[in-house]
Amino acid sequence: MSTLSLPQRVRVVEVGARDGLQNEPTFVPTEVKIRFIEMLADAGLPVVEATSFVSPRWVPQLADAEQVLMGIHRLPGVRYPVLVPNLKGLERALAAGAREIAIFTAASETFCQKNLNRTIGQSLQEFEQVVQEARQAGLWVRAYISTAFVCPYEGTIPPEQVLPVVERLLEMGVDEISLGDTIGAAVPTQVAQLTERLHGLLPLERTAYHFHDTYGMALANVLMAMQMGVWIFDSSAGGLGGCPFAPGAAGNLATEDLLYMLDSMGIETGVARQKVAEAARFILQHLQRSTPPSRYLQACAPSKEAK
Amino acid sequence: MSTLSLPQRVRVVEVGARDGLQNEPTFVPTEVKIRFIEMLADAGLPVVEATSFVSPRWVPQLADAEQVLMGIHRLPGVRYPVLVPNLKGLERALAAGAREIAIFTAASETFCQKNLNRTIGQSLQEFEQVVQEARQAGLWVRAYISTAFVCPYEGTIPPEQVLPVVERLLEMGVDEISLGDTIGAAVPTQVAQLTERLHGLLPLERTAYHFHDTYGMALANVLMAMQMGVWIFDSSAGGLGGCPFAPGAAGNLATEDLLYMLDSMGIETGVARQKVAEAARFILQHLQRSTPPSRYLQACAPSKEAK
Repeated sequence: MSTLSLPQRVRVVEVGARDGLQNEPTFVPTEVKIRFIEMLADAGLPVVEATSFVSPRWVPQLADAEQVLMGIHRLPGVRYPVLVPNLKGLERALAAGAREIAIFTAASETFCQKNLNRTIGQSLQEFEQVVQEARQAGLWVRAYISTAFVCPYEGTIPPEQVLPVVERLLEMGVDEISLGDTIGAAVPTQVAQLTERLHGLLPLERTAYHFHDTYGMALANVLMAMQMGVWIFDSSAGGLGGCPFAPGAAGNLATEDLLYMLDSMGIETGVARQKVAEAARFILQHLQRSTPPSRYLQACAPSKEAK
Repeated sequence: MSTLSLPQRVRVVEVGARDGLQNEPTFVPTEVKIRFIEMLADAGLPVVEATSFVSPRWVPQLADAEQVLMGIHRLPGVRYPVLVPNLKGLERALAAGAREIAIFTAASETFCQKNLNRTIGQSLQEFEQVVQEARQAGLWVRAYISTAFVCPYEGTIPPEQVLPVVERLLEMGVDEISLGDTIGAAVPTQVAQLTERLHGLLPLERTAYHFHDTYGMALANVLMAMQMGVWIFDSSAGGLGGCPFAPGAAGNLATEDLLYMLDSMGIETGVARQKVAEAARFILQHLQRSTPPSRYLQACAPSKEAK
């Protein structure tokens, strides 16, 4: 594991339309969401998380999950996972034509109970049947583990707390596990420690990292993870996102910031950065955000470009 | 050079009072500058760049260089370098009691000519006598090389263009060389390449990196540099800074963002992060900046802490 042994290619998993929009105070019109998702897929992103089938009582911002999923024009070869909280959510997702789903649990007990209203064990038990039925229906299944590094209530989460959750999810047969730094507080040493402990348990082609950029650590964390062989990273166009249940959480790592680094380092993604920036500007305009959360958009604002 | 071989201790060189304030549109009152510098030194920063003796015609923001340098109450063991452009500047600095100076040139010919109105060779020649006299006067001398990675006019600057400038500066007898990513466009692979090429030429105890955070790459660049043994980094409280001559340049790496990463990774600096954040809030208030440039201040804004 040398500093310069980096992957040749990285898969970017775009989560803006789900993880981003579910945290916005305003409801974004269905047709705007559809356009946003289509712009992202058109930019070459291989995975564009589309929406969430969590109850509209909890996430009213994505109450139009069916209309969004059924409304998008799908590009061949692109995955459009949707968040599914339970069997009822799975039924809704299947009825709306989902081919990929994402389930979610946490590594911190307190966070899980405050966020999902159940213990980690209970959440895993509930998802067992969801994953089983999803697999029978031929769906591709991604699993999120929140607070895999730091919990806003418990502080640092040691890898020992993460590994059993990973094991259980693998036993269920999920295709990919995304380990989340939910409040964006992790640093590269923690990423190295967890990655080292996952070695031999979770294959790299099934390992994703999901960094938030609260303290600006996300890209340093990506660098460290890449040096250890990880090549799947979640990010959000425009740096949208956060977590309503996580005090102090800012947005996800911005897709265009991630792409700037990968492009400049000669690491292939197949994604057109300018098109992602356009999609980000499009959605930020609808959200009436004057200051874009991403560094890239701040640096490349059309007003600055014009100077 | 493994991913996890990191320095135990890092020296943070605070440049906010000079590199930060010289780029602000408003003139900050002398007593505010003095207070800012004293707060930074009080936070434990071992080097606090104080001001610039560049002609007030070019940098009116720091026209009070004498008053600032003579006005600060110096803490023992802290260095307070001042920027010096030529012999006249050196005379002014010496008369004001400077014990440390910083000179500056560039690795990009176009940038040097547009920024300093002379070729790199001419600038080095002019500084030769400055360094000689400074050393005779017992001063500690730091040298900046701007655009050591990317030039806003020429694009990527290969290490081959940087090495001869480093060699000339070493021949003159400067104590430390700070290699600058002036427009904040460099990525970790470039940092690795330059660091590798500097090996054997520039000792690590004389090597500093100066990253701007335009594209959010600064901390990833710091990480890569640390993995290769570098342990001196420039940063600016509050993320102030930029470069009036470099299109698109945003602020310096914020000292509090750097400290968050180093502290959380267990790397010693001797600096109290909270005190740096206080100093940053103090100066940002005077600059009437509503959105702090640093991620740390955004995440830890008192208004958010109160929630």
